[in-house]
Amino acid sequence: MKPEDFNQTREAQNELVLKQANLGIKRFFNLDEAAYQDGALPRKTKELLGLVSSAVLRCDDCIRYHLGRCFEEGVSTEELGEALNIALIVGGSIVIPHFRRAMVYWQDLQDGAQKPSK
Amino acid sequence: MKPEDFNQTREAQNELVLKQANLGIKRFFNLDEAAYQDGALPRKTKELLGLVSSAVLRCDDCIRYHLGRCFEEGVSTEELGEALNIALIVGGSIVIPHFRRAMVYWQDLQDGAQKPSK
Amino acid sequence: MKPEDFNQTREAQNELVLKQANLGIKRFFNLDEAAYQDGALPRKTKELLGLVSSAVLRCDDCIRYHLGRCFEEGVSTEELGEALNIALIVGGSIVIPHFRRAMVYWQDLQDGAQKPSK
Amino acid sequence: MKPEDFNQTREAQNELVLKQANLGIKRFFNLDEAAYQDGALPRKTKELLGLVSSAVLRCDDCIRYHLGRCFEEGVSTEELGEALNIALIVGGSIVIPHFRRAMVYWQDLQDGAQKPSK
Amino acid sequence: MKPEDFNQTREAQNELVLKQANLGIKRFFNLDEAAYQDGALPRKTKELLGLVSSAVLRCDDCIRYHLGRCFEEGVSTEELGEALNIALIVGGSIVIPHFRRAMVYWQDLQDGAQKPSK
Amino acid sequence: MKPEDFNQTREAQNELVLKQANLGIKRFFNLDEAAYQDGALPRKTKELLGLVSSAVLRCDDCIRYHLGRCFEEGVSTEELGEALNIALIVGGSIVIPHFRRAMVYWQDLQDGAQKPSK
Repeated sequence: MKPEDFNQTREAQNELVLKQANLGIKRFFNLDEAAYQDGALPRKTKELLGLVSSAVLRCDDCIRYHLGRCFEEGVSTEELGEALNIALIVGGSIVIPHFRRAMVYWQDLQDGAQKPSK
Repeated sequence: MKPEDFNQTREAQNELVLKQANLGIKRFFNLDEAAYQDGALPRKTKELLGLVSSAVLRCDDCIRYHLGRCFEEGVSTEELGEALNIALIVGGSIVIPHFRRAMVYWQDLQDGAQKPSK
Repeated sequence: MKPEDFNQTREAQNELVLKQANLGIKRFFNLDEAAYQDGALPRKTKELLGLVSSAVLRCDDCIRYHLGRCFEEGVSTEELGEALNIALIVGGSIVIPHFRRAMVYWQDLQDGAQKPSK
Repeated sequence: MKPEDFNQTREAQNELVLKQANLGIKRFFNLDEAAYQDGALPRKTKELLGLVSSAVLRCDDCIRYHLGRCFEEGVSTEELGEALNIALIVGGSIVIPHFRRAMVYWQDLQDGAQKPSK
Repeated sequence: MKPEDFNQTREAQNELVLKQANLGIKRFFNLDEAAYQDGALPRKTKELLGLVSSAVLRCDDCIRYHLGRCFEEGVSTEELGEALNIALIVGGSIVIPHFRRAMVYWQDLQDGAQKPSK
Repeated sequence: MKPEDFNQTREAQNELVLKQANLGIKRFFNLDEAAYQDGALPRKTKELLGLVSSAVLRCDDCIRYHLGRCFEEGVSTEELGEALNIALIVGGSIVIPHFRRAMVYWQDLQDGAQKPSK
């Protein structure tokens, strides 16, 4: 799945979902967003924490979201590789299919950034 | 995935699978079905238990199946929201992508029920 | 672990923890509590949802907490058995050790209620 | 936890639990036992399957139970090591604490077999 | 997903991934492969261990990979059924959707082997 | 469990385990250690990644180990709180009992550092 498609589907679903959501769910979504703001730890570190958590719990959509955010925060491919190495070691070979898809998505993010804006 | 497509694929696969299954597997399928029958707890509560378990364990197909059954048992959108709120709190943000797909599927179930039968 | 010991340890740890916790963590604890209040679904059903989620995710402390709450809400042993049957079917035999400890704890809750108050 | 203590606690709890269990739960316990009987695959292979499943799902009691059964089926320490190596690779370093306890328990099983019977 | 498509995608992604991977990741891939070589336990048993681990951890791609390897090692449909029965019992009904897809894939592997080579 | 007791038990078990371990297991232990060395990401960040992974996967021993390492790397209580907030949000309330034990252990680490050396 390409970054544009992922982001578009995610936003459309979020809109549909939050229109119907009860107060508890809305507050949970807010807490989720607040957890990754700058604080004692910088956003970049927090996005890596979100990414590695998502990887060991093996959720492709969560991985894609945090890869997008890591890319925006300027994480390098070398830093990403070291973070995902930890995810593979902690979570085991069951993480490998998600790791493969993550690296393809990361490549897409890099390719997208090199395209001239229309 | 639309409810009709999900149900059709599920039934076709079940047929193929149970043709080859050994006795242990067939009995397990029977126990699975029996667990949701009316008893001291009504079926509606049991389907909510099945739904929330499926959500925290993050299995889209299991969520879809129990959403379909909850819909048949007359679960309201407000009741569903409170049950899924518990799933989000217990299971965390890693459940969110499944929650999003669940709400889209629930919308499809409602839309399908409003269509005039041909 | 006996209900009194569990409750005492849990409260002592919660106190220590919330003294140091940041705002995000405190809000998460509040959301957690709010999710089980009466609403479209009664508290009793919500506690059963919390219990079965905790069982399939195999967290003994969470199971104990929700067993205590189910007991307070008047869940019968027969209702509990049907809920935990669903947890066993959904979560598999890996849940059995937790199921065993849950039933011992439930027995302790019942025994405790029959003791004359000092 | 020593093998004798584990076995004794497990049997005492099973007795308490099955006295109160509904039909669904009793049948599930029976299916669980039946799954490991000799068939197209020998019991020894099936116990290794149960052990490795328990290890990647990280359930100490399940690991202990299957270690005891593997020992009875004559699994060698070398075979055990290769099976648990697969569990470590598939499940990752999060399995290591369970692996450590498993090896201590296996040592206890071996020591117990060498003691002269009283 | 058909076996040919799965294998092709997997190999293409592996190539992309290992070109960029750091030493730790490459070594982990090597350890993963080494764990299934003949030893005290034969490869066939090890592939069944990999399959059942993948099933209880519910990773479709891992299941497909080990089904392909089991097929190459001459695992019979009856042996496969007994192994997957253990996976269902240990892992519960949450494994069923993966079990269904596994049996469809196994059918495809068998059908593919009966086709005359072009 | 106090830090001294945890470290002592862990080391004693590691010694017993690695004496019997096959080459694959030994190499896996080495890869595990190598993954947390300084590189493009500093050790401190890597230990936080290990900690949060361990928290969402809910392994008390792994959490204790990484808490000890975080303490050695100079992680502040505020930084720890933000990292564990992410673990709670990603992993949900099922993480809370582990979070409570983590904070007690962290307190023990701090108390231990303030004791005059004998």
